[in-house]
Amino acid sequence: MFKPTQFLHGGDYNPDQWLDQPSVIDQDFKAFENAHLNTVTLGVFAWDRLEPAEGQYNFDWLDEMFDRAAAQKMNVILATPSGARPRWLAEKYPEVLRVGANGLRNRFGERHNHCYTSPVYREKVRQINQKLAERYGYRKNLIMWHVSNEYGGACYCDLCQAAFRQWLRAKYQTLDRLNHAYWGAFWSHEYTDWSQVEAPMTQGDQNVTGLNLDWRRFVTDQTINFFDAEVAPLRAVNPAIPVTTNFMGGNPPESHVFYDLDYQKFAQHVDVVSWDSYPNWGNDYESTAELALKTSLMNDTMRSLKHQNYLIMENTPSMVNWHPVNHAKRPGMHVMASLQEVAHGADSVMYFQLHQSRGASEMFHSAVISNRGGSHTRTFQDVTRVGQILQRLKGLQTTQHQAAKVAIVFDYDNMWALDDARAYANATKCYWATIQAHYRYFWEHDIAVELVSVHDDLTPYTLVIDPMHFLMAPAFATKLKTYVQNGGHLVGTYVSGVVDQNFLAYQGAGMADLITTYGLKVTETDTLYPSQRNAVNVFNRQYQVQDYCDLVTLTTAKTLGTYGKDFYAGTPAVTENELGTGRAYYLACRTDADFLQSFYHRLVQKLQLQAKLPIKKSTKNVAIQVRESTTQRVYFVINYSHEPTQVTLTTPLNNALDGQTVRGMQTLSGYGVLIYSEAK
Amino acid sequence: MFKPTQFLHGGDYNPDQWLDQPSVIDQDFKAFENAHLNTVTLGVFAWDRLEPAEGQYNFDWLDEMFDRAAAQKMNVILATPSGARPRWLAEKYPEVLRVGANGLRNRFGERHNHCYTSPVYREKVRQINQKLAERYGYRKNLIMWHVSNEYGGACYCDLCQAAFRQWLRAKYQTLDRLNHAYWGAFWSHEYTDWSQVEAPMTQGDQNVTGLNLDWRRFVTDQTINFFDAEVAPLRAVNPAIPVTTNFMGGNPPESHVFYDLDYQKFAQHVDVVSWDSYPNWGNDYESTAELALKTSLMNDTMRSLKHQNYLIMENTPSMVNWHPVNHAKRPGMHVMASLQEVAHGADSVMYFQLHQSRGASEMFHSAVISNRGGSHTRTFQDVTRVGQILQRLKGLQTTQHQAAKVAIVFDYDNMWALDDARAYANATKCYWATIQAHYRYFWEHDIAVELVSVHDDLTPYTLVIDPMHFLMAPAFATKLKTYVQNGGHLVGTYVSGVVDQNFLAYQGAGMADLITTYGLKVTETDTLYPSQRNAVNVFNRQYQVQDYCDLVTLTTAKTLGTYGKDFYAGTPAVTENELGTGRAYYLACRTDADFLQSFYHRLVQKLQLQAKLPIKKSTKNVAIQVRESTTQRVYFVINYSHEPTQVTLTTPLNNALDGQTVRGMQTLSGYGVLIYSEAK
Amino acid sequence: MFKPTQFLHGGDYNPDQWLDQPSVIDQDFKAFENAHLNTVTLGVFAWDRLEPAEGQYNFDWLDEMFDRAAAQKMNVILATPSGARPRWLAEKYPEVLRVGANGLRNRFGERHNHCYTSPVYREKVRQINQKLAERYGYRKNLIMWHVSNEYGGACYCDLCQAAFRQWLRAKYQTLDRLNHAYWGAFWSHEYTDWSQVEAPMTQGDQNVTGLNLDWRRFVTDQTINFFDAEVAPLRAVNPAIPVTTNFMGGNPPESHVFYDLDYQKFAQHVDVVSWDSYPNWGNDYESTAELALKTSLMNDTMRSLKHQNYLIMENTPSMVNWHPVNHAKRPGMHVMASLQEVAHGADSVMYFQLHQSRGASEMFHSAVISNRGGSHTRTFQDVTRVGQILQRLKGLQTTQHQAAKVAIVFDYDNMWALDDARAYANATKCYWATIQAHYRYFWEHDIAVELVSVHDDLTPYTLVIDPMHFLMAPAFATKLKTYVQNGGHLVGTYVSGVVDQNFLAYQGAGMADLITTYGLKVTETDTLYPSQRNAVNVFNRQYQVQDYCDLVTLTTAKTLGTYGKDFYAGTPAVTENELGTGRAYYLACRTDADFLQSFYHRLVQKLQLQAKLPIKKSTKNVAIQVRESTTQRVYFVINYSHEPTQVTLTTPLNNALDGQTVRGMQTLSGYGVLIYSEAK
Ligand SMILES: [Zn+2]
Ligand SMILES: [Zn+2]
Ligand SMILES: [Zn+2]
Repeated sequence: MFKPTQFLHGGDYNPDQWLDQPSVIDQDFKAFENAHLNTVTLGVFAWDRLEPAEGQYNFDWLDEMFDRAAAQKMNVILATPSGARPRWLAEKYPEVLRVGANGLRNRFGERHNHCYTSPVYREKVRQINQKLAERYGYRKNLIMWHVSNEYGGACYCDLCQAAFRQWLRAKYQTLDRLNHAYWGAFWSHEYTDWSQVEAPMTQGDQNVTGLNLDWRRFVTDQTINFFDAEVAPLRAVNPAIPVTTNFMGGNPPESHVFYDLDYQKFAQHVDVVSWDSYPNWGNDYESTAELALKTSLMNDTMRSLKHQNYLIMENTPSMVNWHPVNHAKRPGMHVMASLQEVAHGADSVMYFQLHQSRGASEMFHSAVISNRGGSHTRTFQDVTRVGQILQRLKGLQTTQHQAAKVAIVFDYDNMWALDDARAYANATKCYWATIQAHYRYFWEHDIAVELVSVHDDLTPYTLVIDPMHFLMAPAFATKLKTYVQNGGHLVGTYVSGVVDQNFLAYQGAGMADLITTYGLKVTETDTLYPSQRNAVNVFNRQYQVQDYCDLVTLTTAKTLGTYGKDFYAGTPAVTENELGTGRAYYLACRTDADFLQSFYHRLVQKLQLQAKLPIKKSTKNVAIQVRESTTQRVYFVINYSHEPTQVTLTTPLNNALDGQTVRGMQTLSGYGVLIYSEAK
Repeated sequence: MFKPTQFLHGGDYNPDQWLDQPSVIDQDFKAFENAHLNTVTLGVFAWDRLEPAEGQYNFDWLDEMFDRAAAQKMNVILATPSGARPRWLAEKYPEVLRVGANGLRNRFGERHNHCYTSPVYREKVRQINQKLAERYGYRKNLIMWHVSNEYGGACYCDLCQAAFRQWLRAKYQTLDRLNHAYWGAFWSHEYTDWSQVEAPMTQGDQNVTGLNLDWRRFVTDQTINFFDAEVAPLRAVNPAIPVTTNFMGGNPPESHVFYDLDYQKFAQHVDVVSWDSYPNWGNDYESTAELALKTSLMNDTMRSLKHQNYLIMENTPSMVNWHPVNHAKRPGMHVMASLQEVAHGADSVMYFQLHQSRGASEMFHSAVISNRGGSHTRTFQDVTRVGQILQRLKGLQTTQHQAAKVAIVFDYDNMWALDDARAYANATKCYWATIQAHYRYFWEHDIAVELVSVHDDLTPYTLVIDPMHFLMAPAFATKLKTYVQNGGHLVGTYVSGVVDQNFLAYQGAGMADLITTYGLKVTETDTLYPSQRNAVNVFNRQYQVQDYCDLVTLTTAKTLGTYGKDFYAGTPAVTENELGTGRAYYLACRTDADFLQSFYHRLVQKLQLQAKLPIKKSTKNVAIQVRESTTQRVYFVINYSHEPTQVTLTTPLNNALDGQTVRGMQTLSGYGVLIYSEAK
Repeated sequence: MFKPTQFLHGGDYNPDQWLDQPSVIDQDFKAFENAHLNTVTLGVFAWDRLEPAEGQYNFDWLDEMFDRAAAQKMNVILATPSGARPRWLAEKYPEVLRVGANGLRNRFGERHNHCYTSPVYREKVRQINQKLAERYGYRKNLIMWHVSNEYGGACYCDLCQAAFRQWLRAKYQTLDRLNHAYWGAFWSHEYTDWSQVEAPMTQGDQNVTGLNLDWRRFVTDQTINFFDAEVAPLRAVNPAIPVTTNFMGGNPPESHVFYDLDYQKFAQHVDVVSWDSYPNWGNDYESTAELALKTSLMNDTMRSLKHQNYLIMENTPSMVNWHPVNHAKRPGMHVMASLQEVAHGADSVMYFQLHQSRGASEMFHSAVISNRGGSHTRTFQDVTRVGQILQRLKGLQTTQHQAAKVAIVFDYDNMWALDDARAYANATKCYWATIQAHYRYFWEHDIAVELVSVHDDLTPYTLVIDPMHFLMAPAFATKLKTYVQNGGHLVGTYVSGVVDQNFLAYQGAGMADLITTYGLKVTETDTLYPSQRNAVNVFNRQYQVQDYCDLVTLTTAKTLGTYGKDFYAGTPAVTENELGTGRAYYLACRTDADFLQSFYHRLVQKLQLQAKLPIKKSTKNVAIQVRESTTQRVYFVINYSHEPTQVTLTTPLNNALDGQTVRGMQTLSGYGVLIYSEAK
C-alpha cells in the first residue's frame, strides 16, 4: 500500500518533446513551482527517446529531469514506455503489432495496440524496464512506477490464440468439459481437437456466448500476465517502490465503468489503484449534480477495487479534446472536481498533461501549461488554486475514506454475460445504469457506499444490494444466504441467478440457495417494450414500472407490493423474506426513482444507516463525504451547482483550509467546497 | 401434396443435446403427451452427433427417438443436417465455407453459411442424406423430410462465380446479348470474355443493376439446385415421403416477405410449403389487429406459393430471443396466433423448440419445455391448450382455405429491381408496404385474397390488383390485357411498366399492351419529398397523396379523380378504362388509406365480392377466415384485441370445439377464437 | 482563357451506347436542333468503344459524330476517356486499379477509381489522348478538351505511397524537419528512415494530423500531376484548344464546396473552370431562396477560382437519380436555375445528359431526351426554352461578372485542418456553413462577392471577410496586416490563427501580426454544447450566440459589443481596431443571422458598398446579379420563389430578351427571370 507524505499534485510531463528547446523546460519547472505542483510523471510514451535504435539507450535527458525535479523537491512517477513502441521495433519484429478480430495485422501507428503475448515484445519491454529500474530504481525522489498506459483491447494473432487455447486447457482439462460448457452440440459446434478452438472473430463465430465470455476473461488474464511481466524487473531491482497502472472509466455520456478489462482482478496486481477521470462537467444534458453522482460512484468504484485510498493519475485542468463537445471548466469547477475525488479517497490530483504538445492528436487537450497563453491562463490559476488547497490539507492524506455499511455488488462476468445474452431487450439491459439508480439515495443522503465483488467478504456490511445478478455462481448464492442468515440485509432484483459461471441456464426453479434467500421462485421474466409501463402498488401509493417484470411465486417471502396492471396484476412485485436473523428483499421489477427513494428511505431508517453528520444541508446539490483516521474526521462539503447555497454546522468545526473554528450557517459559493475537520 | 391425418402439433426437438441425461429425455416425452403433441422434428443441426468423424456414423440415438415417438404415436419429421457442418468437415475441406461479398472466406462458425456449389459439400450432404433415407425412409412414423434449415444468403467463392458464369452463358448465349442487357457501353463496362464476369462484390462493381438482378436470380436458382441435390437421395429411397424446407418471412418491424430467395420459384420444388412465423405480438408501435393484418397477409402469401394449404414449421410458444424486445405472449395470444395460421390454411402448429437448449445463442428462445420451470409454466399450458383445440378439430385438416376471387400480384424480380433502381426515393419505395395497404380493405372485410405470381393464371379472379409493377415483361402486360378484355377487373398503380425483364428502360410511351389496358400513357413520375403532400379529388371529397404521382395522358381511359395541387392540379389521378368486357383502373398516385377504403368499397359492391358469412361482427379487430371442403364450411372467428367483443350468428352454426349448435349473439373474449362449422 | 462566341447549350452525349441503332442517333440530332443546342460533349467514358482491344482503335463512329455536329453547326467538346477503363486494361495491368485505405486493391468495376501514379495507366492514357489529339485536334468544331471526368478520391497503392514519400522528401528535405512538423516525439512516432512513411491507412495511423494534412495536399498535387500528364499530348498537338476538367460541389443537403481536392490549386492548371451543378430544387427542408443563396455562393466560388467566367459542364434538365429524393423541377425552375448560373458568370448551360441511357446505374438521371417520352416531354420543352433564351442573349457572353469589392477568404488547408483537429465540437465546426452565413447579407442585397484564396491579392477589395481561419501561415497574417494598414477593412472571427501551415500550434499569444491586426489576444476558446447559448450586447440590443466564444484581451482594439452571459459576461465579443488607414473587426463568437445582418448593414453603409442598381425589389426572394463589359451592363433579376412579385425599374432599361425598352413596375412570375441591359 502506497502511503504518500502529502497529497500528490502534478501529472504527465513530456520534456522529451522539447529537448531541442531547453528554455521551454526551464520555464516549465518554474511554472510547476508557481502552481504548487509536487510530482511529475515522466517517460510515458518516451520509448523512442530512451532507445532511439535497438540497444542504444539515451538516458541523459531523463537523468536531468530527475535532477531538476529533485532540485525543487518534486516527486517523480516513472512510466515504463510500453504503451507505444518505436518504429524500429515494429519494423524489425512485426509480431509485436496487434491483429484485429478480422484477422488483419495492424500497420505501425497509434498506441496501446501491441500484442500482449509476443515473446519478442515482452523481451524488449523487459530490457527497457530493467534499464529504467537499474538507473532510477533507487533515485530518492522516485515514488512510484507507472506501468505502461491505459491497458486495453485485445489481440487475435496466432500467438494470442495459442495462449487462449492453453488457458482453456488449464481451465477445462478435457474437451468434453469444454463442449459441455459451450453447449457444443447446438449447431454441431463440438470441438474434437483443441486446435479447433479460435477466439470469437469477425469471419468466424461470435454466437457462442460461453466462448465470448471466456475470451473476455482470457483478455483480462493475459493483460495482467503482461503487466506482471512488465513489473518483474522493476520489483527485482527495488521492491519498495510501489507499482500502479492507470485505469480508466467514467467517460461521457454514461459515466460507465471501464468495460474491457476486469479491474476487480487486475487491481489485485497493483500496489495502489490509480485512474484517469474525465467527466464532461458543464454538459447540456444533465445537471452538474447528476454528473457528480455518477462521478462519485466511479470514485467509489475505484476505491473499492482494493478497499483503499487510490490516486487520480490523470484528469484535465479544463477540457479534453476527445469529447463530442470539448467544453471548458467554468470558474470553480476545477476545484470542485478535484476535491470531489479527494473526498472519495483520492490521495492525488494529477493531470494529463503538464505541458501541451504542439502537434499531433492531443495538442488541444488542455494542460497546466498551454500552447496558447503558456502559464498566463485561467486554467493555470485554477490549477494553482488546487495546489494551494492541497498544500493546506497536508497531513490529511493519512485519512482514509470512512468505512461504508452499505455495499453494492458489481461483477464484470455478470456485466459481460448480461450484455451478450441474446435475451430481454438489448437497449434496456443497462446494468451500470441500474447500479447508478440504486446508488442515488445513498449519495444524496451522504451515506457511504462500497462496491463489492463476488469475492469480497460481505460481513462488514449492514446492507448489501445485488442488482440484476444475471450470471451468478452457486457459491455466491450460498454466500448471500449465509450473509442473510447471519443477520444481513439484502436487496436483489429481477433478472438474477439466470445462468451459471459457464453461461449455462439454471434448470427448473434455479439455485436452491437463492430461492431460500429470497423465499420465492421466479416463473417468468416479462420484457416490456420501451414505451410500455406497469405499476407497483406499495407503501400506500403507486409507482411506475418499466422494462422488466419478474413474475414470482412465493415460498417463504411475504408480499410488500403488487403489480398494478397486465395479466399479473395483483401478484407480488416487491417482497421481503425473513431468514435467520436477516432479511432479503426482492424488487421483481424495474421501478422508477421515486420508488427506490421511498424503499431505501424506509430501509435506512430501519437499519439506522443515516449519515451522522454535524452538518445540515438544504439541497441535494450538496454532497458530503467523510475521510477519517483514528484521531479525526474530515468533512468535504461540495456544492455541485452554480447556485450558491448554505449549510449549517450543528457543532463547531475546524475549517481545514485556514484552521479557524467555525459554527452555524456557512455559505457555499457556486461549485464551492468547504472542508472541515473534527477530532474524534 | 401432403395430406395429414390430423393437424400437426409439435416441433423441433434436439435430444442430441441431452444424450448424457436420459432422464431429461424421458421427462420430455412424457411432457409431449401432456401437451397433446403428435409430431417431433428431429435432426436439425445434428450432423456432428450423426457423423462425429468422417464416415463414422452414429444412429443409435436417432433410432431410439423414432422408437420413442412411435411408442406414443407421434409422427417424425426428419431433417437433413446440412444447415450446420461439423468442424472436421470444414477443417478437412475448407471449400465448404462460404466466401463473402468482400472476397474473404469464412472461418468455421455460425450456421447457414456453406457454399452451395462446392462439389465436396454436395457429396458429403448426399452421403449423410442417403444414410438417413436408407435407415429411416420406410419408418412408419416418418411423415416428412425437413431439408436443411432456413436456406438463405449467398456465396462468392470461385466455384460459385464459375457457376454464375455458366448460368449467364446458358441464359444469354452470347456476350453481345449480355452486354446489351447490362448496357455495357455505359462507363466502358463491356465484357470481351466470359471469364471477366464477376458477381457484384464489395471491392468490385455494385452499380450494374442488370448484373445485380441476375445475381439475385442466380442465388435463388443455385439454392434450389442445391436443394434438389439434397432431395435426390431421399426421393430415390422412398418417393412417397413428402419433402419440404422451412421458409421464412414476416419478421418485425415490417412483417416483410422474405427477401433473399424467390420463394415463388422455390415452392415449385417442395411437396408442401412450410414456414417459420415469428410476429412480435404485443409490441408497442402497432395494435394487435394491425400486426394480425400483416401476419394474415404473410400466411396468405405462403398459401399462395402453391395455392394449397401449408405448414407452420416453426413458431414460438411465447417469445423469441432475437427481436429487439423479446416480449412474452399475453394469456390467450398463443391460441389466437396459432389458430390464425390454421384459419389461413396451415395444417400444423409447430414450435421452435420443444426443449430449450441450456447454452449458446438460442438458449433464451422460449420453448415448450423451458430451462426455467420445465413444463410447469404458463407457456406449457398455452401449448397444451392449442393441443387440445387441434385435437378437437381433428378431421378439419381436410378442408382447404376457401378459394379467393381477389388476387394481388407479387413479384420477386420486381421487388429486387425496384429497390435497386437508382431512382425515386429510396426511403419511400415500400413495395411490400404498398401490398399491405391494398390488402387492408379485404382483410378487414373478411374477403379472401390470393397472392399471385406473374406466372399464375389470372382467370380465376374477379379482381386483380397489381401495385407498383416497376419491372414488367411484355408478356405479362399482354396477360393483363387479355385478362381485362375477357371481363377481368384490374387495378394498377403509379411506377409500373418502367423496365423490362433485363432492367432496361422501356422507350417512348412504354409497352403498347399496358397502354391499351389502362388507356393512358404516363408522361412523368413526380417523386415527392417525405413531408410534401398532394391530394386527389374523387368520390366528392379530397384524399391525401404522398410520395409518388404519375402524370398521365389519357388515350381511352376516363378520369375518376384529379390531382388537387401543384402544377398538375386538375389532371387525372384516378382513371377507369373499359376494355373488352372488363375494366382497368389506374391509381396514378400513392393515396392515403381512406381513399383505398372508399375505392375498394365501391369496387367490391360493384363486383359483388362481399364475404357471404353467416356471422356479423361489430369491430374491425375481429377477422373471419373460411376453410371448406366439398361438404362443409368452417369459420374461424378471431378477436385480435385484448378487449372482449360480440359477434352475431345469422344462422345456427355448429361450434367446432364442442359440437353444440349455437345461435344469436356470441361473446369473444380478449384474443378469443370461435370456430364454427356448417354443412354445405 | 476561353472566349466563346455564344453561350454554350448542350451536354454529354453518348452515341457510343446506340451505335447499333442509327435511327436513334438521327432522331437525337434532330432533337438537338429543336432544343436549340449548339454543343455536344463526346467521348466521356467511351474508352472501350474507342480502343476495344489494346492498340486497336475505332474512331469511325466518333468521326461521324464530329461530322454530324458540324453539319448542324454544333461545337464539340471532346473528352479524354480516362474516367473509366476498359476491362482488358485492368485485366492485363492490375496496377491501374486503385488500392483503398484498407490496403485492398479494387476489382474491376465502377469508375473514377484508377491509380493516379501507375506508369502503365499514364502511358495508356497518353496513347489514347495522343490519338484523339492527332485525329481531332484541328477539327473546326472542336472547341475544348474535357479531360477525364470528375477527378476525385485517392489511391494507397505502393506506387502512390512511393510518390508520397518523394513528395515529402521534396518538401521537408530532412527527416528531422518532418519529425518536427509531425511532432513525432509524441507517442514515439519519430521516423528514422524515409521508408517508414506511410499514408494514413485504416489499419495504420490516422491520428497524426500533420500527416493527414500532407496526405490531402499530396492527393491534390498527384491528381494535378496526372491531369498535366493527360493534357501534355493534347497541347502538344494543338495548344490553341482550351483544356478543362469538370469540377464538382454544391450537392445536397449542405451545398458544400467539393472537399477532396484543392480546386484553388487545380484551377491554375485548367484554361477555364467548368463544373457540375446539382442543387436539389424543390426540396422540403429549405426555401427555394435559401437554396438559391447557397447555389449562388457555389457559382461565385467557381468563378473566383480563376477570377474569370466559367462553364456549367453538367446540370440536370429535371431531376438526378442519386439524391435521396429525386424530385422533378417544377415549371419555370429550369429556366431560373440555368439563368442563375449565367448571371453569376457561367458562359454555358450544359447537361448531363442529352440522351438517357437505357440501362445501368444512371438510367433514371433525367436527360434532354428521355427513355420515357423521348423528346415529347415537359423537360424537353424546358430545355428548349433555355435554348431560346440563350440564343436571344447571344453576344452577352462577352460580358464578365461584375468585379466585387467584397471578398471572403476560403482556404482548403484550413478546412481540412479544422475538420481534422481533435478539438472544439466536431458537429459544430461548420466552416462552409459559416462562410454561407457571412455571404448571406451580400447576396440578399445584391452586392457582388468574390471568394479569395490565401494566395490572392487582397488589394482590389474594400472589405475582406476571413472567417474561422484556424490554420493560418504567418505570411497570411502579414498580408492581412498590410491590407488593413493600407486602408482595407477586415472582418475576422473566433477560432483563427490557431495553428501554422504544419498544423503546429502557435505558442503564447499567437502570431504578432494577427495581434497587431485585430488589436487583441485570444486567451481561450469556449466551446458550447449544442443547446447552450450566450448573447452579445451590441448596437443597443442583444443577439444570440452559440457554439464558439473566444475570450479576448484587447491591446489596441476597442469594444463594440460584449458578452451577455456566463463567466465572461461583459468582456469583449465584438471589437474594432484601427490600424494605419484601415480597420479590422473581430467577431469573437458565433452569432445568429440577425447580428450579421445588422453588422454588415452598418459596414456596407459606412463603406458605401451598396449595390448601385436601377432596379428596386420588394422581397429577399429576388436576387440581382450584374454582368458587364466595357460598354454595357446586364442585370439578371431572378425570382427564387413560386410566388409572383414585382420589381421597379428606376431608369428605363432594355429587355435583353426582346430588345424592348421598359420602365416602371415589372412583374416577375413564380421562378421568373428578367434580363435587362443598359449601355454604360
Ligand atoms: Zn497477439
Ligand atoms: Zn461458393
Ligand atoms: Zn496508386
